[in-house]
Amino acid sequence: MSDERSREDVDTPTAGVFIAFEGGEGVGKSTQIARAALWARGQGHDVVETREPGGTPLGQELRRLVLDPDGHVTPRAETLLYAADRAHHVDTVIRPGLDAGKLVLTDRYVDSLLAYQGAGRELGAGALMVTTWATGGLTPHLTVLLDIDPAVGLARAGARARLDRLEGASLEFHEAVRSRYLALAAAEPDRYLVVDAALDEEQIAAAVRDALVPLLS
Amino acid sequence: MSDERSREDVDTPTAGVFIAFEGGEGVGKSTQIARAALWARGQGHDVVETREPGGTPLGQELRRLVLDPDGHVTPRAETLLYAADRAHHVDTVIRPGLDAGKLVLTDRYVDSLLAYQGAGRELGAGALMVTTWATGGLTPHLTVLLDIDPAVGLARAGARARLDRLEGASLEFHEAVRSRYLALAAAEPDRYLVVDAALDEEQIAAAVRDALVPLLS
Repeated sequence: MSDERSREDVDTPTAGVFIAFEGGEGVGKSTQIARAALWARGQGHDVVETREPGGTPLGQELRRLVLDPDGHVTPRAETLLYAADRAHHVDTVIRPGLDAGKLVLTDRYVDSLLAYQGAGRELGAGALMVTTWATGGLTPHLTVLLDIDPAVGLARAGARARLDRLEGASLEFHEAVRSRYLALAAAEPDRYLVVDAALDEEQIAAAVRDALVPLLS
Repeated sequence: MSDERSREDVDTPTAGVFIAFEGGEGVGKSTQIARAALWARGQGHDVVETREPGGTPLGQELRRLVLDPDGHVTPRAETLLYAADRAHHVDTVIRPGLDAGKLVLTDRYVDSLLAYQGAGRELGAGALMVTTWATGGLTPHLTVLLDIDPAVGLARAGARARLDRLEGASLEFHEAVRSRYLALAAAEPDRYLVVDAALDEEQIAAAVRDALVPLLS
């Protein structure tokens, strides 16, 4: 109970570097996070690799509840469960890593809520407010958006044989997700790196490294 | 996904009657709910008896996560998990019951958050906002507050051999809970019935019945 925070405003950490990787299904976020982490460690940085949802033991349980294809979770409850996962993840993984001066790389963060829930149905101001409260307003230094045509991304995701509630949605849904992501990036170009995820894995990794260098120096 | 609501304001239902039972540990809420339900059914009313947390299968899983003595849930995550339970409970149990014109009796509702979290630590405006969003502002017609000296109530609760995180807290904590409950009732005397829970079970049941009669007529 000692780490409660009640900051309601945007809060960008001063110690450590916080990078979020975002994008639709099959864009290669986990591959690029692994590459960025390997490179940064080679440069002598302490790196934390994490993910949402499910970046903590509590989060894994919540992820199971939300994604259970046989389960039924009402929309408000779903928003609150993801927010609980995020609050716990921020307070037990992300902030401690940043406070220790580490590079924290997360596979999905708040933009996933904005892109997925905002695309699938009207995202009330209430849901955004809930999520901002959950994170204490913690905002990444940089969000890497891996962008691809959803038809291509979903084919890749399918090849990995993953099928959960999110990925079972229609192509139209995923196109709306992509549009929301691009709109978020366009609104804050200095805080986003948009990379064409159809490029070679090595080309993408190089673009990410180029963006990380000034943040880590 | 069809039942999403985004009302942010206080919302008292027009169909059905919604009664919350509140109070500290060992005040006899479940006994009085059972008695009130038995009486109301005898009067020809359809009655839903429910509880928070844990009034739905999802809620039972969340309750297990929050109350696990070996678990660690950060304060913000705990608030959000209770809010998720409450949102799901309102949307799948309470509102459907009210919409069908039933009498809905719940063992704990929003006031438990205000009394327990407000007593134990500073309850931010954010936590209240989250909870109001979770319920869509749904407010009981009447809240029955069963009030007792915590030393007496805890002794009763201990006799039932229940020990979870809430009940393991100090007497001082429970005295603060009681004060918060009484303050909530004092602020809205027309919407609260405060009953001395040290009275005989039958005397308490009669006081509850007297308050229900005008609401059910």
